Amino acid sequence: MITVYGFSPSGNCHKLRLLLEQLGEPYAWVEVDSSRGETHMPEFLARNPNAKVPVIELDDGRTLSESNAILYYLADGSAFLPSDRWQRAQALSWMNFEQYSHEPYIAVARFIAGWTPLDSPRRTELPSLRERGHRALAVMERHLQSHDWFSGEAYGIADIALFAYTDVAGHGGIELAPYPAIDAWRARVRATPGFVALPDPDPQAAQRIAQTS
Amino acid sequence: MITVYGFSPSGNCHKLRLLLEQLGEPYAWVEVDSSRGETHMPEFLARNPNAKVPVIELDDGRTLSESNAILYYLADGSAFLPSDRWQRAQALSWMNFEQYSHEPYIAVARFIAGWTPLDSPRRTELPSLRERGHRALAVMERHLQSHDWFSGEAYGIADIALFAYTDVAGHGGIELAPYPAIDAWRARVRATPGFVALPDPDPQAAQRIAQTS
Repeated sequence: MITVYGFSPSGNCHKLRLLLEQLGEPYAWVEVDSSRGETHMPEFLARNPNAKVPVIELDDGRTLSESNAILYYLADGSAFLPSDRWQRAQALSWMNFEQYSHEPYIAVARFIAGWTPLDSPRRTELPSLRERGHRALAVMERHLQSHDWFSGEAYGIADIALFAYTDVAGHGGIELAPYPAIDAWRARVRATPGFVALPDPDPQAAQRIAQTS
Repeated sequence: MITVYGFSPSGNCHKLRLLLEQLGEPYAWVEVDSSRGETHMPEFLARNPNAKVPVIELDDGRTLSESNAILYYLADGSAFLPSDRWQRAQALSWMNFEQYSHEPYIAVARFIAGWTPLDSPRRTELPSLRERGHRALAVMERHLQSHDWFSGEAYGIADIALFAYTDVAGHGGIELAPYPAIDAWRARVRATPGFVALPDPDPQAAQRIAQTS
């Protein structure tokens, strides 16, 4: 059985839960609170020297890190990864876009809003993160005006990767109202069999998000 | 024939040249100077709305963006991508590491040193970029102490992805002297058949690099 080391509020970690549930693959989940420095403990660093969740571990102790590489591993050979070479590359292109041009802005704005103190100096980063986040959403909106999915002809791992933080962009003050095609795509993702939502932020995070302007 | 739209001094673009040369695959190269805003011109945006090089275009006009997704596409079915599912996922994991934890520090420090004016306000970012760059190199060094390659049992696209900016980290003031295993791996990569080096920085960039402390 696969063991996931993950932090439940993290979109990067939730990607794996969503795919594992949709694959019907049994897994164990070990909670690692990265907001409290638990990824920097020696036991965790032995699993991922880069000090980041999620990590998966197989029964024989082998480990794999990086959320999108894990999605690829889990989906390899399934309908969640296109079998056509060109489509597979397009899915990987969107997953690289997610990690380089989307997550560093949309996920980081959400993290700062909900998981740092209200007087954190990092809050000065919010306006520029939001601006860059909107640029990424505009690129997605344009694609979705003529395509249903990011993974090719059907829902798959590029949709899972992009859905994770797009769906909760509002937590970081990045509103989705200007993006009707993203809205329709979010509804399609939510309607896929076995869909599970990211848990709501805990009360402290929810309060910080509400108090962030 | 594949057409590459790329900026020759960019490591992300050079990744494709290196793999295409090593595959012996014919290609045309169209120079797009991203340091002069050419990726924001309408003609380029039609090929990649995310305004980044490299992009490849097939004869029928279809395009693919994101350097590591293009590497994957070109290598799919060749010895440069492991055929074993687990090893393939490990290679993708290192390529995600490269785009998230390595390139945003090591490539960006180099870009600021060589391709921004000596009085650019961005130069204040250099100390923190260098610190994060060294963290990424330490993770690589640790892996290379017990492995020859990042792509599995043999040289492949994860090595190409990581080599691109690691080899020129010194341009951004990130010295490689503390990393003997990285040094030995760089020599192994340089000795692979068909290896081509990144071109030297143009005289203006070289002068800025020399004047950056």
